[in-house]
Amino acid sequence: MLGSIQAEIDLFEERLDQALQSEVELVHQVARYLAPLKGKRLRPALAVLSTRAAGGWDERVIDAGVAVEMIHTATMIHDDVVDAAGVRRGRESINAVWDSRIAVLMGDFLLSRALNILVDLKNQQALETVSRVTERLSQGEIYEIQIGRQADTREASYFAMVSDKTASLIAASCKLGPILVGASQETIEALGRYGEALGLAFQIADDVLDFTGDADTLGKPVGHDLREGKITLPLIRALAAAPPAEREKAETLLRQVEKTEAEWGCIVAFVEDHQGLRSARQTARQYGERAEESLQMLPASFARLALQQAARLVVERDS
Amino acid sequence: MLGSIQAEIDLFEERLDQALQSEVELVHQVARYLAPLKGKRLRPALAVLSTRAAGGWDERVIDAGVAVEMIHTATMIHDDVVDAAGVRRGRESINAVWDSRIAVLMGDFLLSRALNILVDLKNQQALETVSRVTERLSQGEIYEIQIGRQADTREASYFAMVSDKTASLIAASCKLGPILVGASQETIEALGRYGEALGLAFQIADDVLDFTGDADTLGKPVGHDLREGKITLPLIRALAAAPPAEREKAETLLRQVEKTEAEWGCIVAFVEDHQGLRSARQTARQYGERAEESLQMLPASFARLALQQAARLVVERDS
Repeated sequence: MLGSIQAEIDLFEERLDQALQSEVELVHQVARYLAPLKGKRLRPALAVLSTRAAGGWDERVIDAGVAVEMIHTATMIHDDVVDAAGVRRGRESINAVWDSRIAVLMGDFLLSRALNILVDLKNQQALETVSRVTERLSQGEIYEIQIGRQADTREASYFAMVSDKTASLIAASCKLGPILVGASQETIEALGRYGEALGLAFQIADDVLDFTGDADTLGKPVGHDLREGKITLPLIRALAAAPPAEREKAETLLRQVEKTEAEWGCIVAFVEDHQGLRSARQTARQYGERAEESLQMLPASFARLALQQAARLVVERDS
Repeated sequence: MLGSIQAEIDLFEERLDQALQSEVELVHQVARYLAPLKGKRLRPALAVLSTRAAGGWDERVIDAGVAVEMIHTATMIHDDVVDAAGVRRGRESINAVWDSRIAVLMGDFLLSRALNILVDLKNQQALETVSRVTERLSQGEIYEIQIGRQADTREASYFAMVSDKTASLIAASCKLGPILVGASQETIEALGRYGEALGLAFQIADDVLDFTGDADTLGKPVGHDLREGKITLPLIRALAAAPPAEREKAETLLRQVEKTEAEWGCIVAFVEDHQGLRSARQTARQYGERAEESLQMLPASFARLALQQAARLVVERDS
């Protein structure tokens, strides 16, 4: 997917590097530590491809991509404080290397610098798109904690949470470029729907990987989200499919504050036995297909093709 | 100071209340807990008065005041996580009542909602003013941690830190209203200089109160900032004024990780003996005067008078 837009991604890396400069030595140190932790660059790649698919180009799209990636990084850094996580992408988290004070403030710094980059684009619609999303990101995170306390999480709550926490920023990444190049509202909305569906597919695939993935490839231990008490779709589906007696047994185990390794094993087996993984995988695939369908109104282009491939890759990936 | 603008402050409270609504129950709960912790409402009051002093009015100034107050609250909530503080304004902090996860995310939520309010004002200059400041706020906080690790903090570092951390948002509060009512650049800049000087006076007075204040009136224990390892002006001044031998003794004591009550007493006595409080108080007064002078170019009005009084109150206050 990235091969066809390598030049744009190189420019993105250069601009991101500039955006992380600071006269404050400690900010600079943390930014240098973050630099090699590149991740997938999914959001900036989507920003570039959706602009091309909309039939336009403007270098400011790169800056929009930088801003979106910084917002994503900021939420991950705050997530690590929230989860007291020691590892992120296979390296120690900011709160582990420095402390949670630096992590909180560095997240704030990245978020505010990202907003400055967007303000400098002087485009009201672009700014509205992102500022609405930053609000949904934090509300989604709080909602996740709220529903995590309830044993009877329904699918509707799960989808609302994932839409806020993950899909909204991916959708914004897909809308920003088209907005900046003055694409039609129909095109902007179609690419927004693509991003929303892709984001849901992405998160559900992530939920499945939490059970089936390889710790080294994922950069986090298997079953990590489950142990964090996060609500994931495979578990919701297994709870819904299991006979009442087994469901109750699983719920009792889930509510138990401390669990032995054997008990964790029981929960994983429960999810597998009641088709939780198969069912979630199927839903991820459906969202991937829905993402592809959203692109039908766009003219054929290499960028549209790359976005279609992305919708498949996101579902089938192993990290 | 507030008496003359009671109607505007009432409207502010109403709008703030609306701005804190959320469909997410947990967000709503935390917001309800925050509501009675009103603080001084210094920033919205300055927003209203500076607009009046600039000779204009627009109800959107109230919304700008709401946004600035929410940003201030967000930074305080994150500060409490950063300092692991258990008490704020005489009540338990968010991280104490809920946990630091909720505190981090609630700060993020308030910040992003505040930015949404500002985006909705559709005024590029207003938005730039605030987004530059949010970046300075977080950089200033990180800088404070950085210089807190150095024993030889110079006055220049202190003033740079306070300018970023405190004065910048107060200056923005004074500029936003004039920007929104279309005041001249000279008027906007004069009120910005007023806010910057007032902010410095405010923080230095706060530093002095940390030594001399009453715990109940302050809502935090006396010597709290000192014990947090924060660099405050009275200490910098005493270190600069003391003979080398005494200075060295004090620095050794400050570097010591654990201190007995008697040793804390020694540090307080050191600051008093070397005129740290008197010298800092004098500087606070000078900034108060500088703030008043910035107002000279404005026509006489009740609002200008109220701003002048505020500059004196900030220096002479006991909480």
